Amino acid sequence: MKDTCSHLPLRNAFILPEGMIYLDGNSLGPLPKSVPARLSRMVTDEWGQHLIKGWNVDDWMGQPARVGDMVGRLIGAPAGTVTMGDTLSIKVYQALAAAVKMRPERRVILSDSGNFPSDLYMAQGLIAQLEQGHELRVVAPDEVAGAITDDVVAVLITQVDYRTGRMHDMGAITRAAHAAGAVMIWDLAHSAGAVPVDLDGCGAEFAVGCTYKYLNGGPGAPAFIYVRPDIVEDLQPALSGWLGHDAPFAFEPEYRPAMGIERMRVGTPPVLQMAALEAAMEVWEGVDMAELRAASVALCELFIGEVEARCPALTLASPRDAAMRGSQVSFHFEHGYPVMQALIARDVIGDFRAPDIMRFGFTPLYVGEDEVRGAVDILADVLDNRLWDRPEYKEKSRVT
Amino acid sequence: MKDTCSHLPLRNAFILPEGMIYLDGNSLGPLPKSVPARLSRMVTDEWGQHLIKGWNVDDWMGQPARVGDMVGRLIGAPAGTVTMGDTLSIKVYQALAAAVKMRPERRVILSDSGNFPSDLYMAQGLIAQLEQGHELRVVAPDEVAGAITDDVVAVLITQVDYRTGRMHDMGAITRAAHAAGAVMIWDLAHSAGAVPVDLDGCGAEFAVGCTYKYLNGGPGAPAFIYVRPDIVEDLQPALSGWLGHDAPFAFEPEYRPAMGIERMRVGTPPVLQMAALEAAMEVWEGVDMAELRAASVALCELFIGEVEARCPALTLASPRDAAMRGSQVSFHFEHGYPVMQALIARDVIGDFRAPDIMRFGFTPLYVGEDEVRGAVDILADVLDNRLWDRPEYKEKSRVT
Repeated sequence: MKDTCSHLPLRNAFILPEGMIYLDGNSLGPLPKSVPARLSRMVTDEWGQHLIKGWNVDDWMGQPARVGDMVGRLIGAPAGTVTMGDTLSIKVYQALAAAVKMRPERRVILSDSGNFPSDLYMAQGLIAQLEQGHELRVVAPDEVAGAITDDVVAVLITQVDYRTGRMHDMGAITRAAHAAGAVMIWDLAHSAGAVPVDLDGCGAEFAVGCTYKYLNGGPGAPAFIYVRPDIVEDLQPALSGWLGHDAPFAFEPEYRPAMGIERMRVGTPPVLQMAALEAAMEVWEGVDMAELRAASVALCELFIGEVEARCPALTLASPRDAAMRGSQVSFHFEHGYPVMQALIARDVIGDFRAPDIMRFGFTPLYVGEDEVRGAVDILADVLDNRLWDRPEYKEKSRVT
Repeated sequence: MKDTCSHLPLRNAFILPEGMIYLDGNSLGPLPKSVPARLSRMVTDEWGQHLIKGWNVDDWMGQPARVGDMVGRLIGAPAGTVTMGDTLSIKVYQALAAAVKMRPERRVILSDSGNFPSDLYMAQGLIAQLEQGHELRVVAPDEVAGAITDDVVAVLITQVDYRTGRMHDMGAITRAAHAAGAVMIWDLAHSAGAVPVDLDGCGAEFAVGCTYKYLNGGPGAPAFIYVRPDIVEDLQPALSGWLGHDAPFAFEPEYRPAMGIERMRVGTPPVLQMAALEAAMEVWEGVDMAELRAASVALCELFIGEVEARCPALTLASPRDAAMRGSQVSFHFEHGYPVMQALIARDVIGDFRAPDIMRFGFTPLYVGEDEVRGAVDILADVLDNRLWDRPEYKEKSRVT
């Protein structure tokens, strides 16, 4: 990974359309070359030829633990502390439902306004379901540490803000949470595979995340959940599905949680998605997260410098300090939406978040300096010549 | 479908290993021929070439509603009342969590001992989470209708018993539930694609099910949920994820449920699994469920008659009356486990459920009279010659 920016040693591990500059791996990673053959084998040889026997002979049942360990390695989680399945929203619910049981006398769930809305929605749904007088308190990102009072059950924070790329200090916030006796839940959706994460070191009780962004698992790839090993045996899962049972195939009438992280499994795992994800995770073998991070910072800095030099109408929405930023760069611009559509029409793919944010993700596995410079060339052209000022770029599509 | 048993017009729509007699479609359906190409196209052309744009240009976002309507047609659910996603356990939780809110003064969740354990486990998890004094009351299958007292919040029943194939009368139980003011939740895991179901006619509030059994969606295929249209607008989803929000891409801080069944969506859908399932569902175009049911009954009757004539050691565990039975036949036998292993070793695939039940599923789309007779020939040979009495057949595997 030493010369990532210039050599891109892993670029050949991905399929990228000819001519496309893809700066949206923070939303959906590109297709790893290893995936189609693995998935085809899974479908044709395993499902097609082994049918029900695949659960044993192809060890479909072991996928969530196996892939969990592959993800765990990138986020500082020891083997056997991460399992895969469901969606990130479900995993948020599992962590939060467990946390409220751990601090039964407390009533405040603390989050920040930079959190991804689904995390807030899941908290709202849990609170309404419980009817125990819990409250979701949402503060500005800068105010989180100071807002962790001793009535806080859990601090639920996404480390890297999906709009601005602003990055929280996991160690500092986790320490503040623990000092106040609160449970810490980190959402690593924009962290896993993007920045070095040290879950074991920070001591947070829970972490959750998705795998279709920087981990390139494909659309709808399974989510992950980490539980700190010293507390997992005391957790009573709210979503107590049969695959989290200690003996799922004994078909006992009473739920008994499985040992360890296995209890956070719920229903039958999505074997096809899991096979695609497992193949995608093989790309990460040998990747050093510190080196990847250095390459990411270099790309982001280059992009900021070039945009600020050549596109003065845009205002940086991300923190200027690289240490406070994830692996994306966002800019404010009044006409951000049509500008982004004009970029996409010219095969520079980023995305837009209301009201005025243009997001660009930098993923050193397959993006290098040439792409950064090429993207800025086109962005400058779109702005200088007001190419965005066309009706077709102003029409809103459903997903941006 | 007229001469299903002899002509098997849809058999060519499936990949079945040469020589295998597959009587386990009630556990995992075989691979439809349409799936590999569709999945490969989805991965290579859609994800690979369109990347993030696939959500729009390939309408990944619309899959859950589109496939939901395909499933709905087989279970008597009007268009727009079924959505897909997550696992069956999660869908059970959603239905049950909504039901307890609909009858806030009641405290009993009623189920039966024939229900699949995960349904019971999910109820136990919800009850423990709520801490509102709810109780899961489990009665024998025959006692359900009589046990629906006026303290019952919800009746949660799997129509077809996973072990014995015993089938509940949906109309009668739903009427009894409604007469007592209870909410009716049907689990159709062993019904959808196996027997005719008339959800609209029976008036149940909720139905849930999986799609990897008779619907052949592949291992880990997404689950479905139906909500009766006249109550859906009043439901406050417990699992209030962003894709169940009225405007997911507005990223509002407060959850507002989407119109209709869309509010039962939670997180990002598993697009690869959904593509496989959509291709699998195309097999059902033109299939008449009444004709399929007649063919299924004929196969089951043939199997029972042949086994009882040639394998006197086995005792029928399923109801003798076809009207009381789903699309599977089960037999008790003290040495059921090693017998089933011996059958599997000879490519007759059924499965075993403790303590002594051998299950055989009959799926007229791809199983005919020849397979039934062939399976009984081998079963009789295994029994007559005590071929099961070998150490290798007695060793327990994890999934049977």
